[in-house]
Amino acid sequence: MKFQIIKEDTTGTKARVAKINTHHGDIETPVFMPVGTRATVKTMTPRVLREVGTQILLGNTYHLAVRPGEQLIRDMGGLHKFMAWDGPILTDSGGFQAFSLTKLRKLTKNGVTFRSHIDGAIFEFTPERVMEIEKCLGSDIVMPLDHCIGWPCTKEEAKQAAQTSIDWLKRSKDYELSAHQNLFGIIQGSGYSDLREWCAEEMVKLDLPGYAIGGLAVGETKDVMQEMIEHTNKVLPVEKPRYLMGVGTPVDLIQAISRGVDMFDCVMPTRNARGGGFFTWEGKKQIRNSRYARDESPLDDKCSCYTCTTFSRSYLHHLFSKKVEEILGLSMLTLHNIHFYHDFTKNIRQAIMENRFQSFMSNFLDTYQGT
Amino acid sequence: MKFQIIKEDTTGTKARVAKINTHHGDIETPVFMPVGTRATVKTMTPRVLREVGTQILLGNTYHLAVRPGEQLIRDMGGLHKFMAWDGPILTDSGGFQAFSLTKLRKLTKNGVTFRSHIDGAIFEFTPERVMEIEKCLGSDIVMPLDHCIGWPCTKEEAKQAAQTSIDWLKRSKDYELSAHQNLFGIIQGSGYSDLREWCAEEMVKLDLPGYAIGGLAVGETKDVMQEMIEHTNKVLPVEKPRYLMGVGTPVDLIQAISRGVDMFDCVMPTRNARGGGFFTWEGKKQIRNSRYARDESPLDDKCSCYTCTTFSRSYLHHLFSKKVEEILGLSMLTLHNIHFYHDFTKNIRQAIMENRFQSFMSNFLDTYQGT
Repeated sequence: MKFQIIKEDTTGTKARVAKINTHHGDIETPVFMPVGTRATVKTMTPRVLREVGTQILLGNTYHLAVRPGEQLIRDMGGLHKFMAWDGPILTDSGGFQAFSLTKLRKLTKNGVTFRSHIDGAIFEFTPERVMEIEKCLGSDIVMPLDHCIGWPCTKEEAKQAAQTSIDWLKRSKDYELSAHQNLFGIIQGSGYSDLREWCAEEMVKLDLPGYAIGGLAVGETKDVMQEMIEHTNKVLPVEKPRYLMGVGTPVDLIQAISRGVDMFDCVMPTRNARGGGFFTWEGKKQIRNSRYARDESPLDDKCSCYTCTTFSRSYLHHLFSKKVEEILGLSMLTLHNIHFYHDFTKNIRQAIMENRFQSFMSNFLDTYQGT
Repeated sequence: MKFQIIKEDTTGTKARVAKINTHHGDIETPVFMPVGTRATVKTMTPRVLREVGTQILLGNTYHLAVRPGEQLIRDMGGLHKFMAWDGPILTDSGGFQAFSLTKLRKLTKNGVTFRSHIDGAIFEFTPERVMEIEKCLGSDIVMPLDHCIGWPCTKEEAKQAAQTSIDWLKRSKDYELSAHQNLFGIIQGSGYSDLREWCAEEMVKLDLPGYAIGGLAVGETKDVMQEMIEHTNKVLPVEKPRYLMGVGTPVDLIQAISRGVDMFDCVMPTRNARGGGFFTWEGKKQIRNSRYARDESPLDDKCSCYTCTTFSRSYLHHLFSKKVEEILGLSMLTLHNIHFYHDFTKNIRQAIMENRFQSFMSNFLDTYQGT
């Protein structure tokens, strides 16, 4: 995997445009990665994902190990072939889900044992086992098992979780992945800036192809989140991609980009869509609102996606209305929201390239309602 | 509306290929019309409907009058614009739903009064009121309010329902629709062949642009259904399109086509898809069946649809599996099933054109498992 910086911001921020070269194609950053938990970005076909500008998507190790099982996916030719997505894929480690979704989990130095949230079957995730699963999946970017700790936690707990994550990362690095796969480190440290810096320093020593900032968007304030990003990025090498996990709103994204983050994933555009929420350059809105019942305009008149060039708010409001609740509404809002996130990061890349990122960000933050 | 017979079968059946010319485009018959009850063919976008070969689709007067209301649709520019389908649309009368879905309905000579199945609001459907609704919707082919009677029923009940349908059709014909709209008559008569013939004779006197055979697929045997089709078609004029309402399986279709039917609608391909059922040239199958868990082949290896050229049965089985149940599975099986129905009727048209319909039908019935 190659990471090449194309352009650094000249207007006073740490933002940059870069290109990541993977076995399954190139990625221009800053990039948003739609979440395809169970080998599908909910409601979306691969061709529609391409159409709206998806460059790389995320699969979920935990969910895929539970259903349909990584060996089945391996036998079917790997995750790319299985889900018919020939672009790059990043798989998370399942650590977050093992800690957040499951019951009766038991944490040891060796890993985490838990019962699946689907049928109660017992799983044991060790760093090596998670690598084995992700090798079966065949993803391009591979996240290691880490200890993602809840919020709030004591400094001692945060330190212990970070230490565990460092130890497990070392063991993960010793596992031999396929040649095209790239292991990232995941920086932990909760809301403690010195722990963040220490954890980053330890992980940078391993000279990995990229680094993720984990354990954020778990309940801390926006200020704490951005502060942790800033402290972590101070330590992370400029010449490696930085991935902020599970974040976030458009405002979160642009602020993190200004602090030097390159990659994002979040269920926000997809999950919001299924609840009737849609993103516009003026902020997030709710299609179920009765004001849209007779609104002939598109979701966002600045948007060029299929949904906006085809359907009115009135029609989409009908699809989402009580006792109608048509699936087409879910897929059309999902299409639009993913397009919006991609269009947003594309506009950011252009602004950086054209030496106007700072003013672009100010204008955006002035116009966009919400956090 | 023009109806032009292109080719009559030369191999001993009543099958024919024809072209219907409507304000919103041409239709080649025999044709299958996907059902778009609430202004959406469930899970499908208009562009995908075009891609799989949809020529005309069906909207539902009853459902649209209840939600979002015909006046809203009229004010939004009519049903075509509202749902972004620029091809021909047929709207049924809502009579079937008024009789089958609702409670507390009261039938008088003037029409039917009922409470909506959604919120209990009281609706009164008279022949004129139904025409008014369909005028608001702006469909190309308009079905009149009829009395669709259940199965079984006495001859006296069947006669009365047919008489009511004739009376209401006359009143419907007196209503002034928009210039591009075409009213069909709906032949009733339950399983009584003499009533069918009499009802058809009475309606043919009105010289309408087309005729439908209603009140079938309500519980009678397949033999009775085909017998009623044969008796009705004996009376219906050759030079007008014949539409068999709410039917059916591929076997039903080909047999009805051999008896001179031109148009069909049915929820079978779409509803089955959402339950995991998929159609192939060998019969209907169930994707949830565990035999498909590791099956790398497409749903039907004779099929050229997006689903079959993109995804394996294994992947689709995963999408439909318990506790996964991903929406993409519903839309991909729906796409395939509608494509199958269109491909099936296209093959029938070709066979008729090439003077080999009889052998095509024999081969199909030999190969296809099920009724």
